[in-house]
Amino acid sequence: MNAPLPQHLLPEIQQRETPAALIDALKARFTDRCSTALVVREQHGRDESSFAAPPPSAVVFAESTQDVADAVKLASQYNVPVIPFGVGTSLEGHLLAVQGGISVDVSRMNKVLSINAEDLTVTVQPGVTRKQLNEEVKSTGLFFPIDPGADATLGGMSATRASGTNAVRYGTMRENVLALEVVTADGSVIRTGTRAKKSSAGYDLTRLMVGSEGTLGVITEVTVRLYPLPEAISAAICSFPSIEAAVRTTIEVIQLGVPIARVELIDHNTVRMVNAHSKLTLREEPMLLMEFHGSPNSVKEQAELVQELASGHGGNAFEWASTPEERTRLWTARHNAYFAAIQSRPGCRAISTDTCVPISRLADCLLESVAEVDASGIPYFLVGHVGDGNFHFGYLIDPTIPKEREVAEELNHKLVSRALALEGTCTGEHGVGLHKMDFLVTETGDGAVDMMRTIKRALDPKNIMNPGKIFSLS
Amino acid sequence: MNAPLPQHLLPEIQQRETPAALIDALKARFTDRCSTALVVREQHGRDESSFAAPPPSAVVFAESTQDVADAVKLASQYNVPVIPFGVGTSLEGHLLAVQGGISVDVSRMNKVLSINAEDLTVTVQPGVTRKQLNEEVKSTGLFFPIDPGADATLGGMSATRASGTNAVRYGTMRENVLALEVVTADGSVIRTGTRAKKSSAGYDLTRLMVGSEGTLGVITEVTVRLYPLPEAISAAICSFPSIEAAVRTTIEVIQLGVPIARVELIDHNTVRMVNAHSKLTLREEPMLLMEFHGSPNSVKEQAELVQELASGHGGNAFEWASTPEERTRLWTARHNAYFAAIQSRPGCRAISTDTCVPISRLADCLLESVAEVDASGIPYFLVGHVGDGNFHFGYLIDPTIPKEREVAEELNHKLVSRALALEGTCTGEHGVGLHKMDFLVTETGDGAVDMMRTIKRALDPKNIMNPGKIFSLS
Repeated sequence: MNAPLPQHLLPEIQQRETPAALIDALKARFTDRCSTALVVREQHGRDESSFAAPPPSAVVFAESTQDVADAVKLASQYNVPVIPFGVGTSLEGHLLAVQGGISVDVSRMNKVLSINAEDLTVTVQPGVTRKQLNEEVKSTGLFFPIDPGADATLGGMSATRASGTNAVRYGTMRENVLALEVVTADGSVIRTGTRAKKSSAGYDLTRLMVGSEGTLGVITEVTVRLYPLPEAISAAICSFPSIEAAVRTTIEVIQLGVPIARVELIDHNTVRMVNAHSKLTLREEPMLLMEFHGSPNSVKEQAELVQELASGHGGNAFEWASTPEERTRLWTARHNAYFAAIQSRPGCRAISTDTCVPISRLADCLLESVAEVDASGIPYFLVGHVGDGNFHFGYLIDPTIPKEREVAEELNHKLVSRALALEGTCTGEHGVGLHKMDFLVTETGDGAVDMMRTIKRALDPKNIMNPGKIFSLS
Repeated sequence: MNAPLPQHLLPEIQQRETPAALIDALKARFTDRCSTALVVREQHGRDESSFAAPPPSAVVFAESTQDVADAVKLASQYNVPVIPFGVGTSLEGHLLAVQGGISVDVSRMNKVLSINAEDLTVTVQPGVTRKQLNEEVKSTGLFFPIDPGADATLGGMSATRASGTNAVRYGTMRENVLALEVVTADGSVIRTGTRAKKSSAGYDLTRLMVGSEGTLGVITEVTVRLYPLPEAISAAICSFPSIEAAVRTTIEVIQLGVPIARVELIDHNTVRMVNAHSKLTLREEPMLLMEFHGSPNSVKEQAELVQELASGHGGNAFEWASTPEERTRLWTARHNAYFAAIQSRPGCRAISTDTCVPISRLADCLLESVAEVDASGIPYFLVGHVGDGNFHFGYLIDPTIPKEREVAEELNHKLVSRALALEGTCTGEHGVGLHKMDFLVTETGDGAVDMMRTIKRALDPKNIMNPGKIFSLS
């Protein structure tokens, strides 16, 4: 059961009418690739967020850039919103048709267009998912590191500026998207860059589009960087007497510049849930799940150094996962923490948080927040890409008890306020969507949000591109 | 002797009048920090480019963000252009007052505001230069890697999206600026980010400002990433029988993912000039000048692997510079290549190029261009950040012979066209300025440039922020 949209968002939630003439025109252009079936519309009118909104009026299944351009042109002609859709894994209400309109589903645009192994780049259609991409480039000895957990599309990951477990070493979509093709609000098609590794040629439209959450255009092609598969990879688990000990170890690892590829915190609570869900026997203590990439020597050196730092904080001897199968099993368990948590309280709903702070503030931010949620009595899970100062609580609420949602929202509010006071951000990787519009203003100030609004109004004068997201225009 | 501005730029070169009332208001506000002395204006009306334009009408020496905001507000009130000035090292005419206006010199805003060593970040005023920054953070064991050669300001480096020799490992200003404070065209002050390492909070205004060349605002504060000083650093020179052999070696180094910190190509011509200028005895053959950063073991491993690859292409045994003094001597010689070249032809002027291509295209792009310039008879130097696919010719023309400038412009035109055909960019790190406005359109297409224009018009409706640069608005 999803919640009604929060009251303070209501000014943005005026449903705009979708004229029958637009539906007719879309059906004429796309025939059976334009659906108005309720079940299809409903599937496209929600994401992993916990809000409810009426579904879009129609869903267009685009198979080419031209399809997207034509759909946008028709929508523009009738002044009707367009919401791009990949596979629906976003978390902050990005996909909700809060002002009505049509959903443009790009999941069928799922071809890898060109692999340039020599240049470590690949160009894909927006519906390609990260797992598919890694499958398709495997034979080249290269890989795409960005891993937000969900098997999201490259288009969606670009639109939300996603990152995840490998970002501590390889960066986020911000650093890894080289160029985009985008259908703009008037239905024209632009390219935002070349395959050159760097450029000073004009405004950085690529980075403007990355993270714009569909509000400035529909991404129809993505060129990203690939990386040589490391010669050696090893994963290790280290248990700690406290969350603080694990966090302090992480801080030292980063400050010493150890090029660790992944360093994930899982609290004892969550380890318990993961054990139950994934049939594992991990020690039910706070742990760091780490991965080291490099030459065999370098991996060994990194691990020895990190072990030394961990021991200084009471960390146990590393337990190693050295075969690819063991590693996959561990990381799958980590990625399934969300589902493990959901199962731990039947019928519950997880309200996910997503703050990121400078690493020196991580211990303060995390520990105070843990104390707060412990005191609230709401069950939760806690995972974190702690090497980047980014972590997520999942408050496991009973959706039939309004009070629990209220408490969870309050906890999130306190957490974000704390992160902002510590010079952090209200969202490390999930995006603003509907949920964090107020926090964005607190974080950046009116001036910066006004600049975003000015850009939005200039590039989308009819306000048809995923309207009502990131900021209020009213 | 600088050249008149190219004819095709003339629509942009309508001098706008600076009313006496504005000068009076600036003098009242800034007293002796507002200068109208010709010598001061002339110094602020040129950069390292080879164009001439009338100087600005006045120069304001700002000492605070408030100073900048007040100067911009007054300029806006009188509809007069504002050109931000750091230390004047830009290369593409960015600083020229092509439409008149005032120069706002931020070189006195040169304080390091806060070093957050634990978070590997530092916040500085825009007039801090990269050498000054490295001096001031030295005691923390951290360093700022971006090194464009010139001792540019952090404000200027942000505005042109600069990079240089270390970018192959540490990225460019695009990757290393975390947040900015900016005075916008109406004189208000915004902040574009936090100190969090990553964020998905709204449009990436930081990256929009980085590379906007003063056309969207004046940067008044810069937060950048720092890096732990590597445990071990070693620099090596390797001579090759041909440019091609050096380039092919570089391509293999990158494709294997060796985390090399610097890999610079210097052709035999330029080695000769450098030897003469810096009293060195380098072998006068094409060479790679490399630097390796990491643990002692990792540095050793990297160097061994690169030596092996180089030997496969006929490269000589590495000559090592292992003491900091030797390294500094080598890098200073590299950075002085420009001056060495200028000295090699008394009275000459260097016309610098700046293309960047995907690394697999580097050999083709470079070798064809070398053949072309050799055939032209114009003396030149050639240096390149080849690990990024970025290189620079300097055509050494006699400025009193118009034909030579013409030939140089033609060579540059052919070079850029070749780079674009090979999926590269018209500028890897110098920016568009005046010189590359046409190339930008060829590179990105009208659609993308129109989007840049729309953003510019929306954020600077009076077109007062460094007008006439990057693209024509007419």
